[in-house]
Amino acid sequence: MSEPIKLVAFCGSLRKASFNRLALNAFVERLPAGVTSQTIEIDWPLYNADVQAQGFPAPVQAAQQAMLAADGIVLVSPEYNYGPSGVLKNAIDWLSRMTPQPFAAKPIAIFGAAGSVLGSARAQYQLRQILVFLDGRPVNKPEVMIAQAQNRFADGKLTDEVAGKLLADLGASLALAVRHARAAANVK
Amino acid sequence: MSEPIKLVAFCGSLRKASFNRLALNAFVERLPAGVTSQTIEIDWPLYNADVQAQGFPAPVQAAQQAMLAADGIVLVSPEYNYGPSGVLKNAIDWLSRMTPQPFAAKPIAIFGAAGSVLGSARAQYQLRQILVFLDGRPVNKPEVMIAQAQNRFADGKLTDEVAGKLLADLGASLALAVRHARAAANVK
Amino acid sequence: MSEPIKLVAFCGSLRKASFNRLALNAFVERLPAGVTSQTIEIDWPLYNADVQAQGFPAPVQAAQQAMLAADGIVLVSPEYNYGPSGVLKNAIDWLSRMTPQPFAAKPIAIFGAAGSVLGSARAQYQLRQILVFLDGRPVNKPEVMIAQAQNRFADGKLTDEVAGKLLADLGASLALAVRHARAAANVK
Amino acid sequence: MSEPIKLVAFCGSLRKASFNRLALNAFVERLPAGVTSQTIEIDWPLYNADVQAQGFPAPVQAAQQAMLAADGIVLVSPEYNYGPSGVLKNAIDWLSRMTPQPFAAKPIAIFGAAGSVLGSARAQYQLRQILVFLDGRPVNKPEVMIAQAQNRFADGKLTDEVAGKLLADLGASLALAVRHARAAANVK
Repeated sequence: MSEPIKLVAFCGSLRKASFNRLALNAFVERLPAGVTSQTIEIDWPLYNADVQAQGFPAPVQAAQQAMLAADGIVLVSPEYNYGPSGVLKNAIDWLSRMTPQPFAAKPIAIFGAAGSVLGSARAQYQLRQILVFLDGRPVNKPEVMIAQAQNRFADGKLTDEVAGKLLADLGASLALAVRHARAAANVK
Repeated sequence: MSEPIKLVAFCGSLRKASFNRLALNAFVERLPAGVTSQTIEIDWPLYNADVQAQGFPAPVQAAQQAMLAADGIVLVSPEYNYGPSGVLKNAIDWLSRMTPQPFAAKPIAIFGAAGSVLGSARAQYQLRQILVFLDGRPVNKPEVMIAQAQNRFADGKLTDEVAGKLLADLGASLALAVRHARAAANVK
Repeated sequence: MSEPIKLVAFCGSLRKASFNRLALNAFVERLPAGVTSQTIEIDWPLYNADVQAQGFPAPVQAAQQAMLAADGIVLVSPEYNYGPSGVLKNAIDWLSRMTPQPFAAKPIAIFGAAGSVLGSARAQYQLRQILVFLDGRPVNKPEVMIAQAQNRFADGKLTDEVAGKLLADLGASLALAVRHARAAANVK
Repeated sequence: MSEPIKLVAFCGSLRKASFNRLALNAFVERLPAGVTSQTIEIDWPLYNADVQAQGFPAPVQAAQQAMLAADGIVLVSPEYNYGPSGVLKNAIDWLSRMTPQPFAAKPIAIFGAAGSVLGSARAQYQLRQILVFLDGRPVNKPEVMIAQAQNRFADGKLTDEVAGKLLADLGASLALAVRHARAAANVK
């Protein structure tokens, strides 16, 4: 419990005042002691295998390195058209091509905020399917779907206590999954 | 049956020698008489609501206009990480924000090619979920999943006859769905 | 518009006081003039191909005949474990084996009620995927997900006006889809 | 590694000569030394909350007890209408209502056989979504989708070596997941 835990986070919205970015801030503020998180910006080129053949873009390489050095990953996405944003999917498409593939075997927390009453649920289940291929290990509980997001934030801060508690619980759940993975690491 | 049918097609891969692009070519070559298709390139900026607030990029606007003038839509996508490409999703995310929303009530054909034995199936079901939100009308049959794509093409052409027949059937199915939509257009 | 429309409905819960059954009642009460619905009970044997080889159970045969004679189908399901109930899926599994397959080309309305804030959304998307195989034609809008169902009913009746309005709109949407299908029926 | 591992398995098909049952047999034969599996029959009553209120059926109670005493769970399902069988879903619906809920935190292997080229893939992804609610822990790799099952078995035995190797790998992967869970069990 005393060993520090490092997380790498991605936010699927590029909008400056994004509710998902604010939710990510709220998540980070509520992480247990000893757990830190670094957010990686993903305004990357569109994935193109011809470009990849010339070499991965520098920010993709840097993201992979940060992920490999991290203990867990955080994926935050708005729900656009019942799926995760194309922006986040594009980042995942790039990262999935790298060796070592940086999602493999990592504990992962997924959450999102949306204007609808479903709070990004549909996007989250699509992300979970994506993570099967990537061999990511998303924690199951709690699922955090911040619905009607326009009512949950004020002055750039999360104001909804229920959502805040869920984000804190998710951070604790992810930290526990990391500790479990460490305990299992020597078992072959 | 004599009235021409116009389609607009999108390919989720930007790679020049993309199997999906070749499959789209094969689909277009097999369209019934009187049916034409225009492919729209989607190497667009990443979706960003702050950018949208300044105005939609010109190619997004042009795509919307082409879609509104078309009778049906064709979505072709590789399967990356068990979903449609981020590139295609990004295009959908832009287009979905426009008014009129250009997928609404349109008959749509979905297909894809992939190296795996599942032939992009998982990506196609995610696209079908996306189209519920967009009120698109994907045809159900045939489902065309070109598996082990590396064995189905040579010299830039589809060589697999089974896949070719399925693509021809899908084109006929989409054309029929367009004629059905026309027959229903005056029914309120 | 004057020609009567006949619907066949299935409810995925066997519980007598089921919220989904009450929601189905509320849907039927709000159907447009000229539209009638018959609910088919589905406390059928578990699907077993060995049993099928001896002949389909009588209630399955009767349900198929009713569906073939109907213009549209209504699927109402609780969400159990993020999917439609096994009870409803079992009924679908039986019906799908019959010839003619009775879901094919039928306009379909899907809705559900659940205790959770997601109101059976996950079950509904699984049903939509199931209907791709069956060539059913679920209407896209409105999606009716009656969340926190325990607060929406009293004395065996739906009391939530928003949900009531959505059910009425869904009934009208299904009736319109039936009329569209009729108008298209002669187009080959 | 020396401590025995006990599994409980469920097969979603009731057909005597079911390919999925044969695949389960093949899986069990290929389990690593020290790993044993018990198959539980699921020709149970249809789930009905009114029946549950009178008490859980005896076979459901017995299944729960066996699961709680086991280290891991095996779910084998045919794909009916792009989902797991109603039979399996019905069993899950019963089990999910018990306390303690017997899927919670258990390592789980999923596989299936189907006549189609997709080999039950769609059913497996629906099962994975179901397991999010149940807090099951399905292993990601390998995914075993036995396609065109009619060509993979003879005289009641799996004859396809590729599928046999995948089933062996899945058994090893599940056993490893169980050992990981044991190593993590004391970490809070």
